[in-house]
Amino acid sequence: MRIAVDAMGGDHAPREIVKGAILAAKEYDIHIILVGDKTLIQQELDKAGNYPKEKISVIHAEEAITMDDLPSVAVRKKRKSSVHEGLRLVKKGEARAFFSAGNTGAVMACAKLILRPIEGVDRPAIGAVLPNAKGHSVILDIGANVDCKSIHFLQFAIMGSAYAKIVFQKDEPTVGLLSIGEEDLKGNESTKNAFNLLKTSPLIKFIGNVEGKELYKGGADVVVCDGFAGNIALKVSESAAWYIGKLLKEELTKNFIRKMAALILKPAFESLKKRADYTEYGGAPLLGVNGICIIGHGSSNANAVKNGIKVAYELAEQRLNQLIEERVKASLERLKVDKVETFWNNIKDRFKKITSD
Amino acid sequence: MRIAVDAMGGDHAPREIVKGAILAAKEYDIHIILVGDKTLIQQELDKAGNYPKEKISVIHAEEAITMDDLPSVAVRKKRKSSVHEGLRLVKKGEARAFFSAGNTGAVMACAKLILRPIEGVDRPAIGAVLPNAKGHSVILDIGANVDCKSIHFLQFAIMGSAYAKIVFQKDEPTVGLLSIGEEDLKGNESTKNAFNLLKTSPLIKFIGNVEGKELYKGGADVVVCDGFAGNIALKVSESAAWYIGKLLKEELTKNFIRKMAALILKPAFESLKKRADYTEYGGAPLLGVNGICIIGHGSSNANAVKNGIKVAYELAEQRLNQLIEERVKASLERLKVDKVETFWNNIKDRFKKITSD
Repeated sequence: MRIAVDAMGGDHAPREIVKGAILAAKEYDIHIILVGDKTLIQQELDKAGNYPKEKISVIHAEEAITMDDLPSVAVRKKRKSSVHEGLRLVKKGEARAFFSAGNTGAVMACAKLILRPIEGVDRPAIGAVLPNAKGHSVILDIGANVDCKSIHFLQFAIMGSAYAKIVFQKDEPTVGLLSIGEEDLKGNESTKNAFNLLKTSPLIKFIGNVEGKELYKGGADVVVCDGFAGNIALKVSESAAWYIGKLLKEELTKNFIRKMAALILKPAFESLKKRADYTEYGGAPLLGVNGICIIGHGSSNANAVKNGIKVAYELAEQRLNQLIEERVKASLERLKVDKVETFWNNIKDRFKKITSD
Repeated sequence: MRIAVDAMGGDHAPREIVKGAILAAKEYDIHIILVGDKTLIQQELDKAGNYPKEKISVIHAEEAITMDDLPSVAVRKKRKSSVHEGLRLVKKGEARAFFSAGNTGAVMACAKLILRPIEGVDRPAIGAVLPNAKGHSVILDIGANVDCKSIHFLQFAIMGSAYAKIVFQKDEPTVGLLSIGEEDLKGNESTKNAFNLLKTSPLIKFIGNVEGKELYKGGADVVVCDGFAGNIALKVSESAAWYIGKLLKEELTKNFIRKMAALILKPAFESLKKRADYTEYGGAPLLGVNGICIIGHGSSNANAVKNGIKVAYELAEQRLNQLIEERVKASLERLKVDKVETFWNNIKDRFKKITSD
């Protein structure tokens, strides 16, 4: 299997990307196409010295999208970027998946433009794997799909379930809806509508609302929300973790004895950091486009890149997109059947009413 | 100043409530009216023995609202509850403020019903004080005002600013809008509209969007959002902190050496817990009702109750509600002026266009 990798994306590109690609090429049965500045990439490959040359090739891209580029501008103005070229390889069937640790918004915009959404999917969404007390869950959308309708929530649920099925190896992943628990109004207008659609959908295993306070307890395999709530949940979590880490550091460096004790506990803190870090998972897929597109964290090191490529490889091998396409189609047909049924039931009810009057 | 305290609300009521009331009575120049089951309250007072008898009185309430009571039911069916009676004391002017560590939803519902919203305030909101790297900020609404319009965001901003002015002693508290930072769509429909209104309002010091990732960095004194986003932000923070604490505990008890080092660091962890705990602040006010109503955390101990009563005392003394009322009125008048101006400007523009054609 051939996988295209954006060699120019990320804070430590191309060095860590190339290193990660070599690690992945050594470990998995894949061929990696590094896309980007040929000279720079070759330099990094040469530095690495001993790498499986038959499993790595390079395709040149004239431009590179930076982390500061505005997505809407980059997608139109940098058409020869490594992101565009990499995604074109997927589009043409010359690669089965694409990985980038670059500008999330730009990769998303380019993927939507070049790969196009899967039939039946209105809004491709980014899913992130979050650790929790019971294991992991996928939360989506964490991209920028704000102001979503019920049907989008259902599509997120279907796409998230397909993703969870593959990465968590669960036959029927449970789906929860991120909402608030206040009585009277369990959620806002859009989540209340989504709740009603999700609970009647036979294609997912819906288990009801997941409140914010339950997010890290772990109850649902898939947590669906619109991109606004998802972004708030994810970023606030990061901010809270950062703040706790900051306070912890302050407390542990207050005097000599604390410093010494903290030194002994260094491996514990490092292990904690690793376990709480959702970016350890390698990357978040853009679900719902025609092709596998994995977006890694900007700060990805070689190991994170390797993990991201692994996710890309698994999702491609297990045909994530066929699964999504089938289920979305089935759900749309089901909705049509439901609508027709509701229509006839309404007519019957009216007829009964008229005849009984 | 007389302050009514719900002796029956909270996980440790009436014991901790009565203890906290005694602490507050000793420390501040106030008179406390304990509202609830007279016999139970008297038992607790007797246990305390030496307390300032002239500064504490008891008013009997036949019923008590439990933590499991549904707010909408409790507000109608338990009209003789300690919450109802306490709020009635404020309504009648027999107390200047009310504190309860009971059922948040029920206290909010009763306060809205009995005290009524301040003129010009459409939706009373709960504001919570969150710690951050630079100090503290108020976030509101964390109650249940979902699906808010721009005008509600403006009212939250005005009420939050008045509150921050008093508790942070800042003349012009800065206001941020909780939103997401994705380019193209900086927020959802409702926050984008709110942004436009907030930035033109001269009555607040608006500094723009606050992203989730910035929440604990501390940039704005007041962070406004609808009750859905606010609830998600607050509860997800709690959940993340809980999860990190859980992982930390697991890591620190893995072997004997770690256990010993962790024992040395116990004071550091306790201090951390205290600093990160937003409930340490004593209570969250329900802003925008005619009367001061402070809602404490259900798990409040005597010290938290004392802090909550202190907040109630300060807000009453510094006339929070007059401040809110004046500013809301001024903002409404300003909006009218703006509307009339826009109206005339539009007419002028049209006239110019007609005459130049």
